[in-house]
Amino acid sequence: MLIEMGKRAKEAASLLNTLGSSKKEEGLKAAARALSDHSSQIEKANEKDMEKARQNGMSQGLLDRLALDSKRINAMAEGLLEVAALEDPVGEVLSMKTRPNGLIIGQKRVPLGVAAIIYEARPNVTADAFGLCFKSGNAVILKGGSDALHSNMAIAEAIREGLFSVGLPQDAIQLISDTSRETARELMRLNDYVDVLIPRGGAGLIKTVVENSTVPVIETGTGNCHVFVDASADFDMALNIIENAKTQRIGVCNACESLVIHRDIAEDFLPLLAERLKKHQVEIRGDEEALRLCPGLVPASEADWGQEYLDYIVSLKIAGSIEEAISHINRYNTGHSETIVTSDYANSQKFLNEIDAAAVYVNASTRFTDGNQFGFGAEIGISTQKLHARGPMGLKELTTTKYIIYGNGQIR
Amino acid sequence: MLIEMGKRAKEAASLLNTLGSSKKEEGLKAAARALSDHSSQIEKANEKDMEKARQNGMSQGLLDRLALDSKRINAMAEGLLEVAALEDPVGEVLSMKTRPNGLIIGQKRVPLGVAAIIYEARPNVTADAFGLCFKSGNAVILKGGSDALHSNMAIAEAIREGLFSVGLPQDAIQLISDTSRETARELMRLNDYVDVLIPRGGAGLIKTVVENSTVPVIETGTGNCHVFVDASADFDMALNIIENAKTQRIGVCNACESLVIHRDIAEDFLPLLAERLKKHQVEIRGDEEALRLCPGLVPASEADWGQEYLDYIVSLKIAGSIEEAISHINRYNTGHSETIVTSDYANSQKFLNEIDAAAVYVNASTRFTDGNQFGFGAEIGISTQKLHARGPMGLKELTTTKYIIYGNGQIR
Repeated sequence: MLIEMGKRAKEAASLLNTLGSSKKEEGLKAAARALSDHSSQIEKANEKDMEKARQNGMSQGLLDRLALDSKRINAMAEGLLEVAALEDPVGEVLSMKTRPNGLIIGQKRVPLGVAAIIYEARPNVTADAFGLCFKSGNAVILKGGSDALHSNMAIAEAIREGLFSVGLPQDAIQLISDTSRETARELMRLNDYVDVLIPRGGAGLIKTVVENSTVPVIETGTGNCHVFVDASADFDMALNIIENAKTQRIGVCNACESLVIHRDIAEDFLPLLAERLKKHQVEIRGDEEALRLCPGLVPASEADWGQEYLDYIVSLKIAGSIEEAISHINRYNTGHSETIVTSDYANSQKFLNEIDAAAVYVNASTRFTDGNQFGFGAEIGISTQKLHARGPMGLKELTTTKYIIYGNGQIR
Repeated sequence: MLIEMGKRAKEAASLLNTLGSSKKEEGLKAAARALSDHSSQIEKANEKDMEKARQNGMSQGLLDRLALDSKRINAMAEGLLEVAALEDPVGEVLSMKTRPNGLIIGQKRVPLGVAAIIYEARPNVTADAFGLCFKSGNAVILKGGSDALHSNMAIAEAIREGLFSVGLPQDAIQLISDTSRETARELMRLNDYVDVLIPRGGAGLIKTVVENSTVPVIETGTGNCHVFVDASADFDMALNIIENAKTQRIGVCNACESLVIHRDIAEDFLPLLAERLKKHQVEIRGDEEALRLCPGLVPASEADWGQEYLDYIVSLKIAGSIEEAISHINRYNTGHSETIVTSDYANSQKFLNEIDAAAVYVNASTRFTDGNQFGFGAEIGISTQKLHARGPMGLKELTTTKYIIYGNGQIR
């Protein structure tokens, strides 16, 4: 019964709400210590998951994401210590004003309460998500994938012990051990106990959560990111940015998936681009005009424009103007990250103003959309929706506000 | 087909996104002028709605909410002029920092895009909601109740004419003329075109929207607001606040619906309270202890604690401590507005810190939770959820942010 879990989470949350920063720091340090102390139990639990995964024929890449050794467990503990050192967002008063009737109205940052995270595969998310939620004063209910169940349980158990050892509520972290879909659906409708639900995983998971959840959701992740090479672009800069955004790490949401090239430079630029991407065996799927200008491209279909490949493939469109480029990008993007390479001032401003996305760049790689790169210290995900949080979400995005009002008998 | 409407709204939104404040002001003034100019057409359309409503046996109270005369139409126009004069929230850069690699990362306030509002009864919402959305750079799709359809259509038509007269996109406001439930459901799932959905109306409407919408929703409205009279309360102040919060206007979400009285003063306070509320024929539904202490109360059932009466009824519970009072309130409240009457410093802080609600008061009436009272100039509703906006929502709450990043060739 998730309801019982919800109740316990809510109770833990009201305790966390009143903790000062130093007590929360102590909890995170105790949790980090407990992870290191329980390293061998966690490795044993992980071995169970690995064995099952091998039997099920899991691919080498996924096996690598699942595997834990003492180094990776220590890295999780380190992660908790890093979060412990971040500034506590809770308690900040954003504004406080006296009204004409003498009421003093302040807006204060407070924890959300109970956060739920549904995630796939990587067991380190268990510790990472706990750390960010705990630091921001939230209790967390975690539902990981079945492949990592034993690992996740061992990690959560260690953290609970750590919290207990310093007199903090263990239910600040609870892991759902039932990985069925029915339980996932129940969690998505636990409105009385869960304040926010954050899915972390592939497009399929996110779609299921958005469609089935009545709990408020923050949509994260999918990134069909574009690089637009304007007519005035510095070719070297454009090639470097495209190479980096497309190939530095292909499986991430801020990788480039689609190129838009200004017609005026296409004939000169395309051969250089094809050559540069050949080094990484990137397949370029171009529109008709691009195919005419540059031999060796693969024809793109309509479906390509909206595709997040997460692979050594990129779509390519020729645009006759910046307006056409912006309209193409706004039509097919997922609201994640887009960049223009240009040396034209007006076009840089136009692109920044008119592109509808969480992060809009001039002359830089889309790969920078990331909590660490933005200086937040850590992130719980990258929001591609517009409500509450947009772009990399750090500790602040795990809080809400409440109005606190000081009166002396005012009535209307 | 709502999809066509959604496309037009999105196009209008991208135009609004680039408008400066003065052009938006011009649009609002033109819309206000058009409302006054079309006063007689709007009154005629309203007469149709009124006639149908009378035939359907609508109550006098609801008929009054539906009725429009030239005075009320002018008040709508005035409302648009007031919104025109408010500060434009769009374009504010909340922060801008240079990262170690030279990237300059700013966070800029931008419109949400397309807002949809589903509302009941009162036709003035048509103009009010348009005004706030337009000023904050959003296109709006409105779906009003069938009772006010002709009035709403006439108002929307006048506003569209006003916008057209100054060369602004008419589709900044679109009204859905089909008031069927199917169309409402379609609107709730128009994720590709609608960025936020705000329901305005009774608890039933809000529940339907929360349960059926895949578009992000901001939950507004329901208010089971409490007044807690602490042991150290000034009796006169407590009586004035309760009288005001309960009876000044009974049908609103910030009215008081439940009282919690500290045991130490209950015996002395209850008779005074009963006498004060008798003036307004308020029925007091008390717990067992209250019934023993004060004759003439009605017994409360469990259902009373969670009830938003919107009527001359109030529930009353005796609490042995502030902890018990806080725990009772946090269990049964709807996250709207709660107040403590006290002269004890520590208890005032404890209440402010531990009550989980959008607005928490010390020594003031809950009736102040309102955009105008808070100094926002106007409001689109009062959010009782924690994501994105909490409490009265003004123009700022109809915006989001995007990261704008200035580089000079940075790659990772």
